[in-house]
Amino acid sequence: MQKRFERNLRILCYETQMGNTFGRIFRVTTFGESHGAAVGCIIDGCPPMLPVSQEQIQKDLDRRRPGQSQISTFRNEGDECKILSGVFEGKTLGTPICVIVENTDQRSSDYDEIAKLWRPSHADYTYDAKYGIRDPRGGGRSSARETIGRVAAGAVAKIILGSAVTLRAWVESVHSISMPLQKDMPAQEDIDATPVRCPHKQTALKMIEFIKKARAEGDSVGGVIRCRIEGLPAGLGDPVFDRIEADLAKAMLSIPATKGFEIGSGFAGTRMFGSQHNDIFYRPDSNSERVATRTNNAGGVLGGITSGQPLDFKVAFKPTATIAKEQSTLSRELADVKVIGKGRHDPCVLPRAVPIVEAMAAIVLADALLAQKAVRI
Amino acid sequence: MQKRFERNLRILCYETQMGNTFGRIFRVTTFGESHGAAVGCIIDGCPPMLPVSQEQIQKDLDRRRPGQSQISTFRNEGDECKILSGVFEGKTLGTPICVIVENTDQRSSDYDEIAKLWRPSHADYTYDAKYGIRDPRGGGRSSARETIGRVAAGAVAKIILGSAVTLRAWVESVHSISMPLQKDMPAQEDIDATPVRCPHKQTALKMIEFIKKARAEGDSVGGVIRCRIEGLPAGLGDPVFDRIEADLAKAMLSIPATKGFEIGSGFAGTRMFGSQHNDIFYRPDSNSERVATRTNNAGGVLGGITSGQPLDFKVAFKPTATIAKEQSTLSRELADVKVIGKGRHDPCVLPRAVPIVEAMAAIVLADALLAQKAVRI
Amino acid sequence: MQKRFERNLRILCYETQMGNTFGRIFRVTTFGESHGAAVGCIIDGCPPMLPVSQEQIQKDLDRRRPGQSQISTFRNEGDECKILSGVFEGKTLGTPICVIVENTDQRSSDYDEIAKLWRPSHADYTYDAKYGIRDPRGGGRSSARETIGRVAAGAVAKIILGSAVTLRAWVESVHSISMPLQKDMPAQEDIDATPVRCPHKQTALKMIEFIKKARAEGDSVGGVIRCRIEGLPAGLGDPVFDRIEADLAKAMLSIPATKGFEIGSGFAGTRMFGSQHNDIFYRPDSNSERVATRTNNAGGVLGGITSGQPLDFKVAFKPTATIAKEQSTLSRELADVKVIGKGRHDPCVLPRAVPIVEAMAAIVLADALLAQKAVRI
Amino acid sequence: MQKRFERNLRILCYETQMGNTFGRIFRVTTFGESHGAAVGCIIDGCPPMLPVSQEQIQKDLDRRRPGQSQISTFRNEGDECKILSGVFEGKTLGTPICVIVENTDQRSSDYDEIAKLWRPSHADYTYDAKYGIRDPRGGGRSSARETIGRVAAGAVAKIILGSAVTLRAWVESVHSISMPLQKDMPAQEDIDATPVRCPHKQTALKMIEFIKKARAEGDSVGGVIRCRIEGLPAGLGDPVFDRIEADLAKAMLSIPATKGFEIGSGFAGTRMFGSQHNDIFYRPDSNSERVATRTNNAGGVLGGITSGQPLDFKVAFKPTATIAKEQSTLSRELADVKVIGKGRHDPCVLPRAVPIVEAMAAIVLADALLAQKAVRI
Repeated sequence: MQKRFERNLRILCYETQMGNTFGRIFRVTTFGESHGAAVGCIIDGCPPMLPVSQEQIQKDLDRRRPGQSQISTFRNEGDECKILSGVFEGKTLGTPICVIVENTDQRSSDYDEIAKLWRPSHADYTYDAKYGIRDPRGGGRSSARETIGRVAAGAVAKIILGSAVTLRAWVESVHSISMPLQKDMPAQEDIDATPVRCPHKQTALKMIEFIKKARAEGDSVGGVIRCRIEGLPAGLGDPVFDRIEADLAKAMLSIPATKGFEIGSGFAGTRMFGSQHNDIFYRPDSNSERVATRTNNAGGVLGGITSGQPLDFKVAFKPTATIAKEQSTLSRELADVKVIGKGRHDPCVLPRAVPIVEAMAAIVLADALLAQKAVRI
Repeated sequence: MQKRFERNLRILCYETQMGNTFGRIFRVTTFGESHGAAVGCIIDGCPPMLPVSQEQIQKDLDRRRPGQSQISTFRNEGDECKILSGVFEGKTLGTPICVIVENTDQRSSDYDEIAKLWRPSHADYTYDAKYGIRDPRGGGRSSARETIGRVAAGAVAKIILGSAVTLRAWVESVHSISMPLQKDMPAQEDIDATPVRCPHKQTALKMIEFIKKARAEGDSVGGVIRCRIEGLPAGLGDPVFDRIEADLAKAMLSIPATKGFEIGSGFAGTRMFGSQHNDIFYRPDSNSERVATRTNNAGGVLGGITSGQPLDFKVAFKPTATIAKEQSTLSRELADVKVIGKGRHDPCVLPRAVPIVEAMAAIVLADALLAQKAVRI
Repeated sequence: MQKRFERNLRILCYETQMGNTFGRIFRVTTFGESHGAAVGCIIDGCPPMLPVSQEQIQKDLDRRRPGQSQISTFRNEGDECKILSGVFEGKTLGTPICVIVENTDQRSSDYDEIAKLWRPSHADYTYDAKYGIRDPRGGGRSSARETIGRVAAGAVAKIILGSAVTLRAWVESVHSISMPLQKDMPAQEDIDATPVRCPHKQTALKMIEFIKKARAEGDSVGGVIRCRIEGLPAGLGDPVFDRIEADLAKAMLSIPATKGFEIGSGFAGTRMFGSQHNDIFYRPDSNSERVATRTNNAGGVLGGITSGQPLDFKVAFKPTATIAKEQSTLSRELADVKVIGKGRHDPCVLPRAVPIVEAMAAIVLADALLAQKAVRI
Repeated sequence: MQKRFERNLRILCYETQMGNTFGRIFRVTTFGESHGAAVGCIIDGCPPMLPVSQEQIQKDLDRRRPGQSQISTFRNEGDECKILSGVFEGKTLGTPICVIVENTDQRSSDYDEIAKLWRPSHADYTYDAKYGIRDPRGGGRSSARETIGRVAAGAVAKIILGSAVTLRAWVESVHSISMPLQKDMPAQEDIDATPVRCPHKQTALKMIEFIKKARAEGDSVGGVIRCRIEGLPAGLGDPVFDRIEADLAKAMLSIPATKGFEIGSGFAGTRMFGSQHNDIFYRPDSNSERVATRTNNAGGVLGGITSGQPLDFKVAFKPTATIAKEQSTLSRELADVKVIGKGRHDPCVLPRAVPIVEAMAAIVLADALLAQKAVRI
């Protein structure tokens, strides 16, 4: 079988997974397989004497956990986190913070079939090709449960950003249903008003209906999440390669099921003239020395560095790969087979992806904030 | 003045520029200011005994250099490269390869004004905010001349990819003018047939007219570059954070003037159902063990790992910030001033950005290819 | 109090602990405080499909754990390890391997006093200075319990090195008692014959007596550990900065209580002439193409790269800082106070440091071995 | 021939040179072969607005350049440096600083022979084994000319350390001739009083005679360099793995011809009892809050973190490998051959190694100083 892979995949070798770490100073490493003993993360580079508690991390984890509402998976896991190190008497020590969540729901029976075939648009095939081995239970390492470690780390990153910074993500569109364009930051309570996490009530209700209908038909849908961060100082981000928008793009495209990223005007900006797209500097208040721009097509970054205007970006999520409809595929033995998504799954990942987008954004910005302090004169 | 910044930019300190290095094993560091002594790069982690010559690197540099055609800047620089190290008798030594291009055109007179104000949608303001100092001549470090080092490194990266891999980028749209959707890889000669680097002749001519018109009006335009890579083995890319699409997204968003990135179906994919979006595995030839998918909405990656299908992504470029129209802005002293783009500039950066997109893609893939070899059993 | 530090330590700020990660491809991150919930490590970059079991890791952990013999601390902890991720059905997945050891012995009472003063030659003072906070229980992060994570990772690294490589460390001297110079690799059973881990029986017995006497007097002793690795291929190590001897030196000096490192001839080599020190190349067997050197003053490395001769280095350990004699010191309030080492401690760390030296050497070499594969042609 | 290597060296592949970069925030990458077009470095992560000039860098380069005195090589190269980027109007921009020195003395004739054989205790053999290719002219990348880039970077690092920090290295012993033990920092003028850079006049004269005698006999000698740094704040260094002594050990063992490293009491400390070795904290001045220790066996570090006491370490250098005596060795074809060091060389590298030790120490400490600022609260 291995030989066969080597032939049909033109693979020279099997490799280990690198790339489980994100960040330069605030460094997050996640670990764990969906149905192994535990998933979690180590946060290295977190400053000491910050107030961090299990409760706080749990609050964010609860926003991503399954079984929250009738539009997400019915699987119900508590996802209770434990801090193993780095916190002493409620304060960070400045040492590595290890957070774990034990995997309670480990029934493997659902997954016997998956071990033998490659689900369409899942990572089964590429993991087989790359590693020559995979944990088939719940997708193993490629499961969205890996993001638990990201959300836990994001909760700590938000503490570094502090209360001056407001960071919010929300569902902008589901399939063809989009909320009306909104220039300002929506209220958190509007985002949380419905399980779909779209702050525009009427649109949210339409989205929920649409998602329920898709599930009823054994199908799934995707959509767009928008994220906005206000209150950041100018000067964050490290050109040339570590521009803030480049790090955000990487962070977002590293989230499972993402297909695109836009900062500021994004692709729509390509259909504007320079004279329309340029953001004009001015002083909103002649008594203050605050500098602002009349428009924000830049999305809050110039030359890879934050300008002090709100950061504003969008992330595209594909429809969930697991569907309840029968699909053709190939077995590991290269035979034609049929597969139907049995496992409990989300018909639309977006509502639960909102806290993940927030977490990754917080990690990028906390890292940039700490990096900024390294090299002062 | 510094004090003022600290107040109005809420900056705690000035910092150095980090992030001038890209890659994990095949590592590229660029250096140089637009009008300093030289720009260039160091390539570390390049295997030994590869045939590398100045001519080869020069060939790629010539595709990005200014003054190539009547739709690019009139500034004319030879951009002749010199290899300072790492190559002996036409072969790489495996040691760091340093390539430099001396800056011949260093007239500063054009740039006195820029030193005193912040050009709209340029990095003048954010560099002042972050570093407290900048080289105003031609944008200094934020100039597109920095990309010379990237293109030089990309030329070496292509040698690592070898002849089995075909990597091509082209201009898909300029402003509202888009070429017809094309599933297959265009021919290189069609891409190079016109200075705009769009392989569809009629569309290319329209684009050229449109760009000329924009310049005549002292304005500028943006557009979309598409890139496609065929012949890659399955198994490249390192989940979780270093997914191939995440690294490509970072690489592309690190190119000046980029606003968005899409892999495969991208944002359009968010308006599809799972049953339409999933790429079905099959065997194109029952006598061969080759595995393929009937569609490629994934864009060649599953779970962050190449699937053996063509890599396919798009990059959005904003309209050139420098325009010949008068614009309002602020001086470093926060006074209201007017500015008109005097310096010679491109009315549309896309044609010259094509080799840059290719270079960054080649760097990402060469690095992934070398990384894949590190951890075999 | 903080203010006071800022004055008397000329500290500008408090920082977090970075530097909890070692290695480039085979990357080990340790975490945990001595008396927190757990200590452990994450191993990233380990190839897939290697046979790894808890038993194997436990075997190495048992060699470093306290309470093994009458010359080590009386504290008795099982130090039972648990693999949380990265291993499936007895084989590595290529994903991050998280290993933890829960801290069973957490009585804090012993440590109340330590929180209030700075023990001589311990890290209490510098941790206070750097972080402004520390976990005083058992030295917190600066405790030798941190090395549990290293030994666990070393056990996995040894599997990568494989059976062709023989890696052994032993106690060469304790205080002024040294074993006779021995050119060849000692037998493992001779090393393990006595609790002091010196392969020369008569010397070992003298060392044990000496250590017991020191303990009886409430004092402590140091010594030298030697390590030898045979069976390595030529070509490991990455000049310029990542020379194999440079990485070994860093690895060894990162072990608590180390004061020096020598490769090959070491400091004695400085008293030789070049004509004596140079290792002459020859062919030990004219029928074979094997290349060897008549002497090995180099210690197995030339220009930072392994030569195929045995790697041979020494590490100096200072006497244990904790002693049962009364010593003067300062309290955190800068008052003159007395301190007597109450906690159970080793009068000589060397016997238990042997597996730690082996582990760090194995990690350095496994990393070099994997790095070597990355960049082949 | 390659095949032969693969057999007799058990090499699986040839690799590129990684490890040309040192540092985490203040990052130095050196490049260049001894007789290529140029050697030099890129310094990334240097703060902006620091006064840096070619003159300043040249001053340090002149201390390491050949032909300074009758006890160093007769080869005479100006080693004139050029700053290509990162400095504008005498101030750092915070962008990468590229410094190059063109190789004027490139006569290859001397080196034809070296291409065909392996000089004893040189890197010819291991480079052939690892890379399968090498630039034989003057040792190519393994030449001490590589250290030019280190010294240039060190000159910039010293500016970051500032005038509060005093950093000096000197020759403590040559072969068996040692200067009397000296507790305090020697005066710079005493170090520079003789070409051997030993601050103790009578010892210096003996050393010079001894070196001249060795050269007359066609032989070479080694020795020990000691380095002391005063004025550092407490709190530098990042346990666990990036302890200040671990980074210093790596930095020093990365210098060509080094065989050992000691911090504080070093190997001598292994023959002391804990009660003698422990450094007792006290207040030298009851009116001040300054904390000091009565002894400094620690060498200025506790738990990997600077204590505010002077950093004090030693580095062992082996005798120069190139000697004018005939030696036996093997040709690349594995034939027995004789070799005599023809090239102009130093009979003792120590005097010229002093500025290299200083440079590497300055780089380690500047990096630690910048790292310390990253993660403040």
